Amino acid sequence: MRIGVLTGGGDCPGLNAVIRAVVRVGHARFGHEHVGIHAGWRGLLDQVTVPLDVDAVSGILPRGGTILGTSRTNPFKSPDGGERCVAGVHALGLDALIAIGGEDTLGVAATLNDRHGVPCVGVPKTIDNDLDGTDYTFGFSTAVQIATDAIDRLHSTAESHDRVIVVEVMGRHVGWIATYAGLAGGADAILIPEVPRSIEDVCAAIRSRHARGKNFSIVVVSEGFELTGDADAEGELDEFGHRQLAKVAIAERIADGIRTDTGFDTRTVVLGHVQRGGTPNAYDRILATRFGSRAAELVAEGRFGRMVALRGDEIVDIPIAEGVARLKTVPPERYAVAEPFFG
Amino acid sequence: MRIGVLTGGGDCPGLNAVIRAVVRVGHARFGHEHVGIHAGWRGLLDQVTVPLDVDAVSGILPRGGTILGTSRTNPFKSPDGGERCVAGVHALGLDALIAIGGEDTLGVAATLNDRHGVPCVGVPKTIDNDLDGTDYTFGFSTAVQIATDAIDRLHSTAESHDRVIVVEVMGRHVGWIATYAGLAGGADAILIPEVPRSIEDVCAAIRSRHARGKNFSIVVVSEGFELTGDADAEGELDEFGHRQLAKVAIAERIADGIRTDTGFDTRTVVLGHVQRGGTPNAYDRILATRFGSRAAELVAEGRFGRMVALRGDEIVDIPIAEGVARLKTVPPERYAVAEPFFG
Amino acid sequence: MRIGVLTGGGDCPGLNAVIRAVVRVGHARFGHEHVGIHAGWRGLLDQVTVPLDVDAVSGILPRGGTILGTSRTNPFKSPDGGERCVAGVHALGLDALIAIGGEDTLGVAATLNDRHGVPCVGVPKTIDNDLDGTDYTFGFSTAVQIATDAIDRLHSTAESHDRVIVVEVMGRHVGWIATYAGLAGGADAILIPEVPRSIEDVCAAIRSRHARGKNFSIVVVSEGFELTGDADAEGELDEFGHRQLAKVAIAERIADGIRTDTGFDTRTVVLGHVQRGGTPNAYDRILATRFGSRAAELVAEGRFGRMVALRGDEIVDIPIAEGVARLKTVPPERYAVAEPFFG
Amino acid sequence: MRIGVLTGGGDCPGLNAVIRAVVRVGHARFGHEHVGIHAGWRGLLDQVTVPLDVDAVSGILPRGGTILGTSRTNPFKSPDGGERCVAGVHALGLDALIAIGGEDTLGVAATLNDRHGVPCVGVPKTIDNDLDGTDYTFGFSTAVQIATDAIDRLHSTAESHDRVIVVEVMGRHVGWIATYAGLAGGADAILIPEVPRSIEDVCAAIRSRHARGKNFSIVVVSEGFELTGDADAEGELDEFGHRQLAKVAIAERIADGIRTDTGFDTRTVVLGHVQRGGTPNAYDRILATRFGSRAAELVAEGRFGRMVALRGDEIVDIPIAEGVARLKTVPPERYAVAEPFFG
Repeated sequence: MRIGVLTGGGDCPGLNAVIRAVVRVGHARFGHEHVGIHAGWRGLLDQVTVPLDVDAVSGILPRGGTILGTSRTNPFKSPDGGERCVAGVHALGLDALIAIGGEDTLGVAATLNDRHGVPCVGVPKTIDNDLDGTDYTFGFSTAVQIATDAIDRLHSTAESHDRVIVVEVMGRHVGWIATYAGLAGGADAILIPEVPRSIEDVCAAIRSRHARGKNFSIVVVSEGFELTGDADAEGELDEFGHRQLAKVAIAERIADGIRTDTGFDTRTVVLGHVQRGGTPNAYDRILATRFGSRAAELVAEGRFGRMVALRGDEIVDIPIAEGVARLKTVPPERYAVAEPFFG
Repeated sequence: MRIGVLTGGGDCPGLNAVIRAVVRVGHARFGHEHVGIHAGWRGLLDQVTVPLDVDAVSGILPRGGTILGTSRTNPFKSPDGGERCVAGVHALGLDALIAIGGEDTLGVAATLNDRHGVPCVGVPKTIDNDLDGTDYTFGFSTAVQIATDAIDRLHSTAESHDRVIVVEVMGRHVGWIATYAGLAGGADAILIPEVPRSIEDVCAAIRSRHARGKNFSIVVVSEGFELTGDADAEGELDEFGHRQLAKVAIAERIADGIRTDTGFDTRTVVLGHVQRGGTPNAYDRILATRFGSRAAELVAEGRFGRMVALRGDEIVDIPIAEGVARLKTVPPERYAVAEPFFG
Repeated sequence: MRIGVLTGGGDCPGLNAVIRAVVRVGHARFGHEHVGIHAGWRGLLDQVTVPLDVDAVSGILPRGGTILGTSRTNPFKSPDGGERCVAGVHALGLDALIAIGGEDTLGVAATLNDRHGVPCVGVPKTIDNDLDGTDYTFGFSTAVQIATDAIDRLHSTAESHDRVIVVEVMGRHVGWIATYAGLAGGADAILIPEVPRSIEDVCAAIRSRHARGKNFSIVVVSEGFELTGDADAEGELDEFGHRQLAKVAIAERIADGIRTDTGFDTRTVVLGHVQRGGTPNAYDRILATRFGSRAAELVAEGRFGRMVALRGDEIVDIPIAEGVARLKTVPPERYAVAEPFFG
Repeated sequence: MRIGVLTGGGDCPGLNAVIRAVVRVGHARFGHEHVGIHAGWRGLLDQVTVPLDVDAVSGILPRGGTILGTSRTNPFKSPDGGERCVAGVHALGLDALIAIGGEDTLGVAATLNDRHGVPCVGVPKTIDNDLDGTDYTFGFSTAVQIATDAIDRLHSTAESHDRVIVVEVMGRHVGWIATYAGLAGGADAILIPEVPRSIEDVCAAIRSRHARGKNFSIVVVSEGFELTGDADAEGELDEFGHRQLAKVAIAERIADGIRTDTGFDTRTVVLGHVQRGGTPNAYDRILATRFGSRAAELVAEGRFGRMVALRGDEIVDIPIAEGVARLKTVPPERYAVAEPFFG
């Protein structure tokens, strides 16, 4: 069999580990041949490929990013996108596709498989850990670790200067990274999209620490969190995916509120892209390898239209469409673990 | 309630995070008071205590080791051990005990609870991940990461010198660390107690790599692995828990076999104690915090004789005796994930 | 002798290592007794102290921040500041002061020593490495390493997405961190206050990379760099030391210019406070220990009014006033090392 | 000009950074063309080459090891070695050689240049930092950091268990790594070849700590240290460069002595090869880049027979033969910095 492999959406530590496992396992156990498709679905539309054999994946396990390149191109944004994908599959002589990506990338794979007869297998990727179909995905653990390391460093500055530091981490719609990095870093408050808070709530927590003689605090906030009652909360992402310059990051707005309300010296750190690049940690390398290995098996078993997923400690497979249907929010009882450590 | 807290057995990254969670959650939610018992069961026998309030646990989340100290003392090795423990509990005015430890430490807690009427809650600790009652324990993930970092470093040396490097990692009875660090580090062979291999098997894998033009290899081996048919495999641990000097580490015996059989330049690294000390990674801090929080709840709920455990992504509780009854070996299908990457 | 020890200005990895060395060496070799002065000169004015003996410094070597606390209080901003400092010295019964800080903190020490008869020894601290009196100071190497680690991580994202990433690092007046982290991280352009560049220069370098087939770039910029001909370059720090919200970080202005001029997908990362907190690296621990040890010796030798400094590989001592008199900029020949790697 | 580049001796973090700088600077500033010579002098004898242009060095800055491979082959061990090297230079059409290596590799370069008319430039490499011609070399700082990280981790284990841990680090003839990692890690004793100590001295230091209430100790020892009066100190390296199995590592012999003399629970860790592999730290990347850049300039300037060296903070050049003539030991005053922290 000749298998096309592509990565779509934002990059994530572990993508190369998935690709390596797909190729090594597919080759060694099933005699698969692989074609790397450059930069996600765009490469299929344009038939731009990357060599992808056992030599090509040698040494990529510890590397961040993706050797295939990535893009956010969604073929179904044009009316003939489906046909052009099918044409690409035929032109490249592919028997099946393995698509590694998030809701958008895998949504395309589901449609190609279900409606256009292109045999597809999916591997879920979301650094925010917001796909309901899988307990965790690769990259998330690395992002949590990077954010935790940063919080560790910020603690000593906060303590030495009697400061409040507001740390903004990734999480557009959900608070997984904030909750986990906040728990691991010993945050004094964690603000996530799932749990509404006003600036008064935040300041109350910090004041209660001061009352206990703790003159410094670390507040961890998801980028997608909004303060209740915040008139500044509108504003849009621009064409480059950036907040408008007139729009102020949530960390800044919280810090302003804390300064105004408490008078404490307050600083902000926006971790940004450092959370998603570089070498995956051991957990993510292992999960990515298990995902890629199982994806190769699904192809060999002809289980198309399905994606791999982690449930508990096991790799299972579920329909792609089901896996990306719902946003996975932080359950209240998980967030509640952090609350006794606040204030 | 007045709760005694102790840590027993080998140290493990995350012990302090458990202790902090027990104290913070017990204090904040249930009004518990805590007494630190020094150096495991020995401190209960001798009634040596350590202050353990909210101030005492401030800042310990990221620290390795245990602020309570630890020992391998097992009170039941003397005939009146049970009575002396009960006497210690009374002398210290304790209403309950939270014991954090492995098979041995928790076995004592089970017996004290079940036969001597001392209300005990257990928190499992095993850096080798060999307790059947819980999917994972804190410390294991950190150990895997440390071993993986070492393997990453060794790769460049092996490749630059056309060398075989044999890396010995922890795991007296089971191969969890070897399997996970080997997978994450891209090992070319992984040798674990659960899977018998002869030196000929190992050399065959290395030769097959050479046949593919790869002139270097990384072999990861559990300290408890033994080569089938190895006449040197006897030898005992001495009174200090060390192998007799006449006894050669398994990594050395494997390296000797590889040199003799293949003639390749072969070196060894025994990672040893660096795997178990120092700051826990984010995963272990979170798991330890969840364990400690739940242990405080079990005490408040009067669910004695039980230990916390991880099942899938949830914290559950099970009878202590059940949790430590069986060794948890690496399942064949998990080890099989690594095999296509060998040779 | 009874020695007061204080830390002033922004925190810096290695402060605790200096304090430990001052106390351990002063105690062991000279029988000194030490008094910790809380939060810089403010603690002397208010006579707020912190216990500072051999036990107090146990275990602080690897810790970030300062166990003494710090502030930016400058006593000479009030007319009677000198007298109040002298009064504090007498009230606390101090025979000498060791002041650890930057231009401002050490300027006070020089004046107290030279005009008010308070025997002072200085230890230079500047994370930006901008004090002319010493080749390097502790904290700088750690900051460079943290920034380099971040650049390593950003490389994989930039490459996978064909992006330009602009990384802003510390350096208000000089480009040491940018130059060193840029060299170590393999930056494609480094922008520092010492070397004027227009946005056209920056875009030309990036375009020349594209012409070579490299579709991604990393630009490292000092926070104090200004584009030549940039009308937006005004704007002030507010009372909290933050840029006004209307004021846009230099990284953002550069990224806007690149987007407008080249059309490339361009992102920014502002590393901020993570660069100055947390455990010092080995280099900084050693330098800080050597500085602290030598400061204790200077006190014992009665060499007051002097500060320690690194010249080549040796610790020397120079007049405090001389050591902080001039800003140390990056010499053109050092910056020139990086230039062949641009574009 | 057409320049051959080779790396000889043990690998060292930063080799690839030197190679990259030689190629990038030589190409960009001087129009040099480069030929990679595989595995040190052996590749010149056998005329085995590796492609070495700007593309070949792309992305290698952060990688450990050497893309050229390395060996310990010394051509002058055979009588016609010099002629065969000259023949290799002619056969490969080389105008000059840049040799990156230690005493042995650079000794060959000096002889080829001085007696055989092969224009050579040297770059010193020694992870032990034992070449007298240069203050520091790349790789050493990374090795010190790795050893320091290990010592940090071991501290928590030693403290939790009331243990002595003896850590053996690299340094066959000199104690630079032990002294620096010991200082940075806060070791309680540092044992180096330059400073004779008996087992009684070591035990006295540990006992004095116990007398102060410190029940744990970290002892750092260079692999080349020998106890005075130790009857077991003979024993030879075998043909693979390993100690004979009958020969016991110095860490083990010290630990045995401590156990016997003090009765304290004592463990050993031999860090071994992990100290020399993997990504170089920022310091070593910068130093290696400066060395490689200057080596390219020396070739362009026709300054043959010379090697680059670090003096203070400047890169200078000196005769190769002079640079490798003497072993650089740790000066007594540098070791003395550590002594007040012992015991």
